[in-house]
Amino acid sequence: MLGKYLEEVRKKTPLVHNITNYVTVNDVANILLACGGSPIMSDEPEDVEDITSICGGLNINIGTLNKRSIKGMKRAVKKAQELGHVTLLDPVGAGASRLRTETAAKLIEINRFTVIRGNISEIKALALGSGTTKGVDADIADAVTQDNLDEAVRFVKDFAKETGSVIAVTGAIDLVADAERCFVITNGRPEMGRITGTGCQLSGMMTAFVTANPDSALEAAAAAVCAMGLAGEIGYSHLADYEGNSTYRNRIIDAICHMDGKCLDEGAKYEVR
Amino acid sequence: MLGKYLEEVRKKTPLVHNITNYVTVNDVANILLACGGSPIMSDEPEDVEDITSICGGLNINIGTLNKRSIKGMKRAVKKAQELGHVTLLDPVGAGASRLRTETAAKLIEINRFTVIRGNISEIKALALGSGTTKGVDADIADAVTQDNLDEAVRFVKDFAKETGSVIAVTGAIDLVADAERCFVITNGRPEMGRITGTGCQLSGMMTAFVTANPDSALEAAAAAVCAMGLAGEIGYSHLADYEGNSTYRNRIIDAICHMDGKCLDEGAKYEVR
Amino acid sequence: MLGKYLEEVRKKTPLVHNITNYVTVNDVANILLACGGSPIMSDEPEDVEDITSICGGLNINIGTLNKRSIKGMKRAVKKAQELGHVTLLDPVGAGASRLRTETAAKLIEINRFTVIRGNISEIKALALGSGTTKGVDADIADAVTQDNLDEAVRFVKDFAKETGSVIAVTGAIDLVADAERCFVITNGRPEMGRITGTGCQLSGMMTAFVTANPDSALEAAAAAVCAMGLAGEIGYSHLADYEGNSTYRNRIIDAICHMDGKCLDEGAKYEVR
Repeated sequence: MLGKYLEEVRKKTPLVHNITNYVTVNDVANILLACGGSPIMSDEPEDVEDITSICGGLNINIGTLNKRSIKGMKRAVKKAQELGHVTLLDPVGAGASRLRTETAAKLIEINRFTVIRGNISEIKALALGSGTTKGVDADIADAVTQDNLDEAVRFVKDFAKETGSVIAVTGAIDLVADAERCFVITNGRPEMGRITGTGCQLSGMMTAFVTANPDSALEAAAAAVCAMGLAGEIGYSHLADYEGNSTYRNRIIDAICHMDGKCLDEGAKYEVR
Repeated sequence: MLGKYLEEVRKKTPLVHNITNYVTVNDVANILLACGGSPIMSDEPEDVEDITSICGGLNINIGTLNKRSIKGMKRAVKKAQELGHVTLLDPVGAGASRLRTETAAKLIEINRFTVIRGNISEIKALALGSGTTKGVDADIADAVTQDNLDEAVRFVKDFAKETGSVIAVTGAIDLVADAERCFVITNGRPEMGRITGTGCQLSGMMTAFVTANPDSALEAAAAAVCAMGLAGEIGYSHLADYEGNSTYRNRIIDAICHMDGKCLDEGAKYEVR
Repeated sequence: MLGKYLEEVRKKTPLVHNITNYVTVNDVANILLACGGSPIMSDEPEDVEDITSICGGLNINIGTLNKRSIKGMKRAVKKAQELGHVTLLDPVGAGASRLRTETAAKLIEINRFTVIRGNISEIKALALGSGTTKGVDADIADAVTQDNLDEAVRFVKDFAKETGSVIAVTGAIDLVADAERCFVITNGRPEMGRITGTGCQLSGMMTAFVTANPDSALEAAAAAVCAMGLAGEIGYSHLADYEGNSTYRNRIIDAICHMDGKCLDEGAKYEVR
């Protein structure tokens, strides 16, 4: 039952330091507040160590990265590691540019992230780009489907084993795995793909979930994925027929704002493999 | 009939690289998704070439420019030009500061943009700032009205001829012209002026329209202007009496999300001069 | 009666230059438009002097500051001071990092701000960090309550005297003071704390209020605080039971959009001490 992980967030109000892209940053802040966390944003290298020190978790998202913010990411990650903080990496666009792929790889090299969360293409880019083909099968289709599910679960577990991180791959079917167990999650709606930043929002919220539940990182990360998908279902049910992706964005955050552990327990759709 | 240009966007899902200001970037991303395009944002000089290479169109918006992002704009524009991509320039604040005017002028010098879109003051600043008075009449009032329409149409056509770009001047009356023809468009509502970034959103969406219809840049740009204005009309019709500019922003993007070619054909208000 | 200060904003459409964080910047722009002001954002050191010169007020918010934008803040502040413009400082996160505390202190050193607006912790950090203990009592609880109100009022008046600025401390009870008088304001709702950036929005709007009413900075700042709190009350009254913090954000800006002087006069809850 995953609802208790949400309840812990509301009880503990974890402070999350976000170095994230400027496209979706406002929604990341609002969903963190909605779930019961507290967001702080800072990317200046000379500011990040102080800021991360007062937080419990660090969410690194490499969308709209630049050379200054990359330096900030590295410093923040080192400080968070030193302090034993929860760290999450969202490798936005890894595989789409050399700078993004290399930055994500470098960050993984200097820190064992508690969680790495991305879409299947980004995670594949990291797994391949890390210079090893272990667990990586070029035949894995970019979309995780019922047809290639076994193979995808194996890939994600293998990459979790290799990195020592919980790996969360989100899409129509979401996978959240450590080396041993994989949550296969089917909450959500396809219309969420027409909103910018649902992935970024999930990464921010997931950092709060894991920070509030440090001894159950796998379950807490899975709970965040279920919560996001369920919020997508609830939010959609409140849309008028003339409302589209921009209002839908608000409704999803609103649904997180009203969600409690019981609601999440009843609505979460997953199996563990 | 302009609806077919929207339909092409939905069919082709053009990937648009945006170097745009951090004020309105989220709305730009959401309207691109709403119209059927796919947005990517990147402004780091070392990242932009890779990103623009995988896209079909490039949207440059100089609001909140800085020296690093200006370097990114130049590199991206050169790469896009090399690859024959659609390019759009939104010279936000040209005329309001030397840096903005010069940056826009420099970008026009190194690249023939497919479209330049701005308000009349920005476009006048560029036309005057380019060191030529050809086609620029200091007597043109800043607002395009029925009274000065002939003169404004002539000015816009002349600047289109001079630059080799489609010129889109938006305001109460919108003008979209190449050297020969000018669409005079009257969709929209005055309340749109109380929302930040309707112009930025239009530039993003217009880049998707032109990228999906590369052989009809003029018509596609005009279709985007009509779609934006029509969305303003539809969105306004759904506002409750206590709803204001912030909700209106969402409703406009929502209206784009639901618009199809038939709706655009029926609602577009324009003549060609 | 504070309504007239809002009416002046609508009459004069003050142009406000904002150097503000990328988290909440869009909402700052929209609330400035909603109240009748006009926003411009620019943080590049080589751009800020031109931009601030065409404005009437300057809003400096140090959230997500970086070394480049700090340089921009300093240049803009100097130029605004030279031109006799209204200036406001929002010391976001002062006390949370050395860079933020020092940047705020440095800005106060080079400019007497018309208004400094923050939460009580930020204002205390500035008052202590300025190297003097005058008027600062370490026993002042971080939250202003009815129990410590006298002490808090004295602290705020003392800091106003020391800085020569109007000091606005916002929280459950808001205090807006110069050296002689303190507005104690009780508009607002606790749910506003779950929205990111209501403070940033208030700072932007307050700059417009003071810019439009330069001879009544104290009253205009207090009017902005009442307007924000009242908008929080009005916006909340329009929320459906499934709507949460993201929609609430829109409703608050919407309420400002519809507010007039009479509405503000009737809804403002304050006493002067």
